[in-house]
Amino acid sequence: MIRRLGAEFIGTFWLVLGGCGSAVLAANFGGEGNPLGIGLLGVSLAFGLTVLTGAYALGHISGGHFNPAVSFGLWAGGRFPARDLLPYIVAQVLGGLLAGFILLHIASGTGTFSIDPNAAGAFASNGYGSHSPGGYSVAAGFLCEVVMTAMFLVVILGATHPRAPAGFAPLAIGLALTLIHLVSIPVTNTSVNPARSTGVGVFAGATAISQLWLFWLAPIAGGLLGGVVYRWLGED
Amino acid sequence: MIRRLGAEFIGTFWLVLGGCGSAVLAANFGGEGNPLGIGLLGVSLAFGLTVLTGAYALGHISGGHFNPAVSFGLWAGGRFPARDLLPYIVAQVLGGLLAGFILLHIASGTGTFSIDPNAAGAFASNGYGSHSPGGYSVAAGFLCEVVMTAMFLVVILGATHPRAPAGFAPLAIGLALTLIHLVSIPVTNTSVNPARSTGVGVFAGATAISQLWLFWLAPIAGGLLGGVVYRWLGED
Amino acid sequence: MIRRLGAEFIGTFWLVLGGCGSAVLAANFGGEGNPLGIGLLGVSLAFGLTVLTGAYALGHISGGHFNPAVSFGLWAGGRFPARDLLPYIVAQVLGGLLAGFILLHIASGTGTFSIDPNAAGAFASNGYGSHSPGGYSVAAGFLCEVVMTAMFLVVILGATHPRAPAGFAPLAIGLALTLIHLVSIPVTNTSVNPARSTGVGVFAGATAISQLWLFWLAPIAGGLLGGVVYRWLGED
Amino acid sequence: MIRRLGAEFIGTFWLVLGGCGSAVLAANFGGEGNPLGIGLLGVSLAFGLTVLTGAYALGHISGGHFNPAVSFGLWAGGRFPARDLLPYIVAQVLGGLLAGFILLHIASGTGTFSIDPNAAGAFASNGYGSHSPGGYSVAAGFLCEVVMTAMFLVVILGATHPRAPAGFAPLAIGLALTLIHLVSIPVTNTSVNPARSTGVGVFAGATAISQLWLFWLAPIAGGLLGGVVYRWLGED
Repeated sequence: MIRRLGAEFIGTFWLVLGGCGSAVLAANFGGEGNPLGIGLLGVSLAFGLTVLTGAYALGHISGGHFNPAVSFGLWAGGRFPARDLLPYIVAQVLGGLLAGFILLHIASGTGTFSIDPNAAGAFASNGYGSHSPGGYSVAAGFLCEVVMTAMFLVVILGATHPRAPAGFAPLAIGLALTLIHLVSIPVTNTSVNPARSTGVGVFAGATAISQLWLFWLAPIAGGLLGGVVYRWLGED
Repeated sequence: MIRRLGAEFIGTFWLVLGGCGSAVLAANFGGEGNPLGIGLLGVSLAFGLTVLTGAYALGHISGGHFNPAVSFGLWAGGRFPARDLLPYIVAQVLGGLLAGFILLHIASGTGTFSIDPNAAGAFASNGYGSHSPGGYSVAAGFLCEVVMTAMFLVVILGATHPRAPAGFAPLAIGLALTLIHLVSIPVTNTSVNPARSTGVGVFAGATAISQLWLFWLAPIAGGLLGGVVYRWLGED
Repeated sequence: MIRRLGAEFIGTFWLVLGGCGSAVLAANFGGEGNPLGIGLLGVSLAFGLTVLTGAYALGHISGGHFNPAVSFGLWAGGRFPARDLLPYIVAQVLGGLLAGFILLHIASGTGTFSIDPNAAGAFASNGYGSHSPGGYSVAAGFLCEVVMTAMFLVVILGATHPRAPAGFAPLAIGLALTLIHLVSIPVTNTSVNPARSTGVGVFAGATAISQLWLFWLAPIAGGLLGGVVYRWLGED
Repeated sequence: MIRRLGAEFIGTFWLVLGGCGSAVLAANFGGEGNPLGIGLLGVSLAFGLTVLTGAYALGHISGGHFNPAVSFGLWAGGRFPARDLLPYIVAQVLGGLLAGFILLHIASGTGTFSIDPNAAGAFASNGYGSHSPGGYSVAAGFLCEVVMTAMFLVVILGATHPRAPAGFAPLAIGLALTLIHLVSIPVTNTSVNPARSTGVGVFAGATAISQLWLFWLAPIAGGLLGGVVYRWLGED
């Protein structure tokens, strides 16, 4: 069990460091409006590649969840025991927090770096209302996070099904996360992962912290929904 | 059969939500001319990833068509029975419509969102003439949709052929859809899929609706053409 | 043999239609300087995806060369018989020409489309000197085309070697073509493929035609070099 | 052994030519601020694709390290004998130097090309402080290079583990390098590879050369760290 938790810790560390790191360090490189920066497309790709690479590297150790909503969804889909939920989620959140901490240290290396707690998406945090990158309401954010996480779980449960082509699941799952970001960064800065939201949110100021509830509630609700839907679809 | 139709419903829902969602929510993020937005490249990637991920997740249930033109083309290629065409197409269109409906609700969350029925590509609708993103004529649009859908079917029938490498078909097919969008978004906003056109078109105003005929006719004609071409090529 | 030539014809058609089509129709969408356009990155991806998808779909029929320089290189590498070179190359060139012809018809659908024969890269043609997109000399263009095609053949011969992972060759080869374009579009608009250069070059005016010799000579020289290098490297 | 060293030589040549070549020739195409250029996203993709394609083509010959830090990390992870370290590293550095030399010749083909030794990232060199693309301190650069290389080795050791899906390792490893660049180009122009830093650094002027020590020390330290971490994680 300790190695499985270590793999979840490192995998979630990689997810937050790579995904949020690309957003904080490279999205606006050269100043906003400069096309050298990787933009929302580059950040979407980065998030997906953290899961793709992490799942190929660590999936055979822990299953490669790296996300409390995925652990809940796999439980709802009948693929993960309830007794492992708490330790997995603790490892994921700790990995996310370490990534936020290290990212803060790297980002501070310019000497001029600072986090504006009133800015939407500050330090790659998730948010709604005035803290949504595109100014989307709490209802739109909630709906979007539920639907996206539900479909993420459908892809995860489907691509790891015994009748799906063997070995391709990390590719499909990682690129599903890229797709989800391509759609929903403007809405909530895209969470679908409470550990990711928490890992950077606690460093991003009071508003980000006060909105964390949604990024626990909606992804987990979506994960459970996706797990139930696929359980019906994929039954033999 | 009900589970197969459920898989087609959910897969087409995912295709329209992810592909059209990326176009509506993220393509122009930050305002037109802002490189933070994902642009046509990001939208092309998103459409492809909906099929790549949907086919890995659901292909083993329904075959993963998610597109009436694909169902017709597979029938022409001798891989799909005629009696399943109608139920598949109904499920696909319903999935596309649900996606359009949910996307409308998310997009409306900014409070300032509106659809201009006279704008080319409004709400990710397909069009020709004054409703083509690049102002392409109906003849150019028809030719482009036929050729692109025909080649899409050649890739689908070839990559799923027993002599093609096993397991890679969803990758090849999804990325073929990305390629098709990289070429043809300026021409028609890229359909090659009547369910995708219908799913958002009915919400996009009178002009989009009045042009839907082309996005049923041309993709299905192209699908049939591709099916016939590959049937000759791939015969053993 | 007729089906193998048909596959080469269709595959090269797809390569030129998809790759050059993305450059002509979508690279500068919205006007030069508008980030909605797919730019050199999108064009690079499109070229690679034509080969990736074409090779998964048609590789089991013809080997999936789609390129005279590849056919020569496979011959130099001991994988392709000399007697098949000429028919393969004829099929490839004809496929490229049909793609150029259809692309011209689609592009003309705006009513305002025209080809400036004095512009570098007009109608996605390849060139050097004043017809190089970045103004590179004939010597730089020749060197670049030789080295890039040689490495393309190393990847092709290596990825299809019996000891390489089975099934991944089309992925590696297609993405190698993307990589080659990411580097060398500014130098020659990237050929590494005489059929691609010819397919659009004959429609692009006198200068493009007068420079075609380099895009036959350098890619074939590079292909032969790569074939010889890998033959030594990969010997058992 | 000579063929293994030849494969490392050619693979590292490809890594530096493709990755640094995309940065030098195509990143700013059309002038800084022109979205036609491939930007940091295109460069990130190019670096990853050199490894993805090189490892599918040459991995079965030499293991496909193409990077002294990877060779050290594989040794620390118990997968590579110490006696092969020196010849592998010599071959890698020589391959990188040849790539820098050829890239210099191609780039000079515009007639107006020159390298400003005082510019951050000149000729794709790595740097810190005033030579960091984003002005990051030496401490931030060191931390970033160590962490990124360590995670690179975790992915390499994990994806090549016997219990990981067979054949997907080059995909996961190449895309991990893309991810690393998506995050860290602004910090150090991204090395994680002493042969890459040396291959272009020696042509980039006195400052780049004087900073090479960090791009040997930090990646090798990170490689050793990643090797040790995964050795613990992946033990059976």
